[in-house]
Parts: sequence; C-alpha cells; structure tokens
Amino acid sequence: MRSTIPPTLDDVAQAAGVSRSTASRAINGGLRVSPEAQAAVDDAVARLGYSPNRAARSLVTRRTDSIALVVPEPDGRILTDPFLSGTLRGVSDGLLGTELQLVLLLARPGEHPGQMARYLRSGHVDGVIVASHHRDDRLEPELGRGSLPVVFVGRPFSDEADLCYVDVDNVEGGRIATQRLIQAGRRHIATVTGPLDMTAAVDRAAGWRAALAEAGLPDDAVVEGDFTTIGGAAATERLLAEHPDTDAIFVASDLMAQGTLRVLAAHGKRVPDDVSVVGFDNLGIAEALRPRLTTVQNPVVEMVEAATGTLLDLLAGAPVPRARVLAPVLVEGASV
Amino acid sequence: MRSTIPPTLDDVAQAAGVSRSTASRAINGGLRVSPEAQAAVDDAVARLGYSPNRAARSLVTRRTDSIALVVPEPDGRILTDPFLSGTLRGVSDGLLGTELQLVLLLARPGEHPGQMARYLRSGHVDGVIVASHHRDDRLEPELGRGSLPVVFVGRPFSDEADLCYVDVDNVEGGRIATQRLIQAGRRHIATVTGPLDMTAAVDRAAGWRAALAEAGLPDDAVVEGDFTTIGGAAATERLLAEHPDTDAIFVASDLMAQGTLRVLAAHGKRVPDDVSVVGFDNLGIAEALRPRLTTVQNPVVEMVEAATGTLLDLLAGAPVPRARVLAPVLVEGASV
Repeated sequence: MRSTIPPTLDDVAQAAGVSRSTASRAINGGLRVSPEAQAAVDDAVARLGYSPNRAARSLVTRRTDSIALVVPEPDGRILTDPFLSGTLRGVSDGLLGTELQLVLLLARPGEHPGQMARYLRSGHVDGVIVASHHRDDRLEPELGRGSLPVVFVGRPFSDEADLCYVDVDNVEGGRIATQRLIQAGRRHIATVTGPLDMTAAVDRAAGWRAALAEAGLPDDAVVEGDFTTIGGAAATERLLAEHPDTDAIFVASDLMAQGTLRVLAAHGKRVPDDVSVVGFDNLGIAEALRPRLTTVQNPVVEMVEAATGTLLDLLAGAPVPRARVLAPVLVEGASV
Repeated sequence: MRSTIPPTLDDVAQAAGVSRSTASRAINGGLRVSPEAQAAVDDAVARLGYSPNRAARSLVTRRTDSIALVVPEPDGRILTDPFLSGTLRGVSDGLLGTELQLVLLLARPGEHPGQMARYLRSGHVDGVIVASHHRDDRLEPELGRGSLPVVFVGRPFSDEADLCYVDVDNVEGGRIATQRLIQAGRRHIATVTGPLDMTAAVDRAAGWRAALAEAGLPDDAVVEGDFTTIGGAAATERLLAEHPDTDAIFVASDLMAQGTLRVLAAHGKRVPDDVSVVGFDNLGIAEALRPRLTTVQNPVVEMVEAATGTLLDLLAGAPVPRARVLAPVLVEGASV
C-alpha cells in the first residue's frame, strides 16, 4: 500500500540528492538552483509522481518578479556610506542567476510615516529586505503583520513579532573590540556609540559595557554619535571635554572613527601612544586611515547575501531559520 | 449663447490666475500645487462649472502613487559618484509636497537586457525618470514606444522617437571649457572624453572640437575615459604617451580630472604652469582638488528637479515641452 501515500517534498529531495530547500526552489520556479540540481529534481518529481500543493504554488507564482531593498535613512549621506554599496553588492550576489528585478527604496525627507510600508504592501514587490532601519520608522509593525515575506538585515527591535533577520553578533563585536583595548593595558576606555535607535548601536555598546564589567573597569564614558564622520568628530569633542583622561575609545563605526582620529590629532593626542582607538566595519575606510585602524569586521556583503537567500527561500515556500547571526572578527591595524 | 460652450482648462487657468499646467495639476489631485493656487482653481472650477474629461481623469487616478528613478549603470562605482546623490536630491526636491513613493532601479551585473523595461511597463509605477543611460541599455526603444510617461535626464540618442528630456547644453559646456584654455594661450589642447555611448560624452567632445576648429587648432588629441577617477588616470597616461606636447586638457568630468591631476603630478608636470586642466561637473570634487579645478557647472539638481516637474505635469495630463536645456557656466579655479 506504500505507493498510495503521496510523495512529499522530503521524498523528492532525497530522491534527487538535494536539500529540502533546493528541491522546493527547483519545484517553484528554479530560483538559485543549478542546472544539475534542477534536472535531478525534475527527474525525481516525474519518477515519484510528486504534485506540489497547488494553493501554495499559486501563491508563489502570482508574483511580480521583483524584490525591494529598503534603506529607511532619510539622509542623503547614506549614499556615500560603504554600508550601502556593501548592501547592494550583497543583494546583487544573492540574486545572481535569478531574473528578479531589484527595487531600491530610500526614505525621502518629509515623507509621510507609513508611506513606504503602504507601497510595499500594495503588491508591487514579492518580498522585502530591510537594511539600516530605526526604531521609529514603523517598518517593523507595518511589515511584520502582513503576509509579505520580509527579511531584516540587523536585529529588529520587537522581539514578539516573528520577524526574520540576519545579523552580525554586534554584542560580541563590541566585546572583542573592548577586550583588545583592555589587553593593551588601557584603563579609561570610552565609547562613541551609533544612533541608539538602531539595534546595531545598542548591541555594540552592550558588548563594550560587558567587557568593562568583566574587567572591573568603569563604564561611564559614553557619547552618542550617528554613524557619520562629522557626527563621530562632534561626539569625540564632547567625550574629550567630559572625560579628559580617556586613554582608549571604541568607536562603533569606522566612518565615525575617521572623525575621532581627526579630533584626537587636533587635540595633539597621538594614536596609539596617548589614546588607542578601535573601530567597527572594515568596509574600506579602516585601511585608508593613518594610523591604519584596528577594527571589527562587519560582514555586510555576506550578511545581505544570506538575507537575500533567506528571502528567496521564503518566496519558494521553503523553511527558513528565524535568525542567522554571523560572527565578528577583529582586524588588527596600528591604532591600539 | 456663450454660456452653453463648456469651459476649458484654459478658462479655468485664466479665471484662477494660474498657469494651465498648475490648473491641470490642481484638478488632477493637487501634486505640486500651493494651497493658494489650489483654492483659486477649486473656486474657478465651481464658478465656471468646469468638468474635466472623465476618461483622461481616470487614467491619471488609476495610479500606483509611485515613480521610478532608473540609473542603468551596472557598475557599483556609480554609488560614490556625486552625480547620483545630486540626482536623488533633485528628485526629492521635485517630489516635495507630493506623497509619491520614489523607487530607485539600478542595473545589476548579469541582468537580462530588457528586464528593467519589462518591470517598468508592468504597472508598478506611474512614471519614470531615466538618468545616466547608455546607447545600448535598450531603455529608449523599450520605454519610448509605450504609454508610460518617461522623462530622460540627458538627451536620448534616438531623434525620431518623441522622447521627453531635460539636459544641460553639453556642446556649449565643452566649448566654453576649451575656449578658456585657448584664451590662456594654450595650443596643444587635448580632451579626455567620457564613455562615447553616452550623449553627454559625445556632446562635450563635440564642443571641444568646435572651439578648436573656430581657433584653427588641431583636434587630434582625444582619448576616451569612463567618467571615473581610475579611468581618467588611465586615459591621461595614454594621452601623455601619444601626445607628449599636450599643454592643456579638457577632461569631461571632475572625477576623471582627479585622476588626470594625479598622473600629471606623477609625470612631474605642474598645473597650470606646464599643463592647464578644465573639468566638468562642479559637484563637490573640483573645489577639493589641488590646485582647485577650473570646471563647468553641471546643474544636476536643477536638471533632475525640472525632469521631475515635467513628469508630474505628464502625469497630470498637462502639456510639457519636449526638451528643456539648461545653460552651463564656467567656474574659475586655479588649474588654467
């Protein structure tokens, strides 16, 4: 009687010698499937007489063949941030071999809150990747509720909503940056944080705090920046005024650290002799600075490529992990 | 019997004391209309008993409330080109006061030719602005034929298609740049052109050639660049090898001129003592170079804002000029 039980997706995957998600993608249109895997799955489907769930299938094929990359930064400065080019490269890599159109949505100054989410929910795209989002941009509640597949790059703020995301372990990143400064014998270790309405900034600061607590060092020297060079310079000026004995700074992005190095130089402080500095990102800025900046690798391209793969799996109806968190790595320069 | 003739849009405009296109926009949803003008038009409509063409009106209101900005540059380097941020600022300015969603489409490496046009024609946007397009990106024939409103930033290649565009007078720009070099007493005036599959590059080179012809000077020193710093440097190396007596260069973009200045310095040539240089764009690069670059102002923000206004007029069914061409201005630096 075994032959009367309809074959499942797992049966097809096993017969084709591919993973369940590859089998699903092959059956649902062949996104990101090699010709060999596609042929093996087609063959297994024919041999086993597999028939995918029609309803689910029509959901998948009623598509616009496009996905949106949403970068809700109203500030034009995002255009020159290497985070954006890394993000675009990651999506491009993730879409290789597909014919999906990539649609980029940047916030506009003065745009109505909720306008972007409204557009996204109106059927113009099949799925969404959200990068560089802020607590109050309303994308989490407005996109989280609907049926539109969404993957966040960077941990969302709301824990309750079942939002799918890919991130780097920013707490661990802040921790290893700070541990490097402690190991260099520094005792007055400050931090210039990113904007605290972003989880990346909150988490990096938490890692800094955790490392200081472990070492029994004070954690009172905190100033908030905004992930830009100008903002990093301004924050560092405030820091030096409030905490003149600072002998090390963990700066939560390399763009900000560029401002920090300028301000330290203007105050006659040598790096690393007087003040050690560790940044975060390693997206092309750190190696161009003098001294070359010790920093934490932010694997943006890999992260966004993984988010794109997760979105393609969601579109194909394949199971996906709720979160994928990549490990940060310290990259030695000459600033500690 | 005058009262039996239905009032026209012109009547409404005259009664309201506004232009025909403002009246049209006010009637068709109020995009880019001041509250005062809107009230005057509403009043005139009520007073005259004006009834807009219903069919045309439904065309306008069956909309997605979004427009696309298309930048068909497959190369990620466009992200750091000030042309892109100027373009985005121009669209943002042009959309102020509207609730239109801006959707940005960049080309992806390996994307199928025609894929973008297919997406654009599928009803996901109400209109399109195309910037930085190339002869072979197929956007002209594929968008020109359809009914989707399209405005090009930069003169299209095909003359026969009735394509709407806004541009700076690039021929005149090349001419005034070159005349400045002639006026400085230079006699071996070369040019580093942009990529010759773009009308901006072709037209700037034509202006250079025209100025030289008027002065009876030779026009044989031409090398093609690609509007990037690296490409400008490589083109300048070829130029110096082929034309070692060059005493002036019109470089068709400031980004390329940045490469030109580096190569001249590496060859021990002083600017302007040995070689004079004029660039094109004045979008933030020229003033940062040493010596400060003499250049031609490319009014990108104004141009794109005008293109956006034209697109809004098209969407509102108002008449628009086929072409608007802005005048270039020479900006003096210290490189001539």
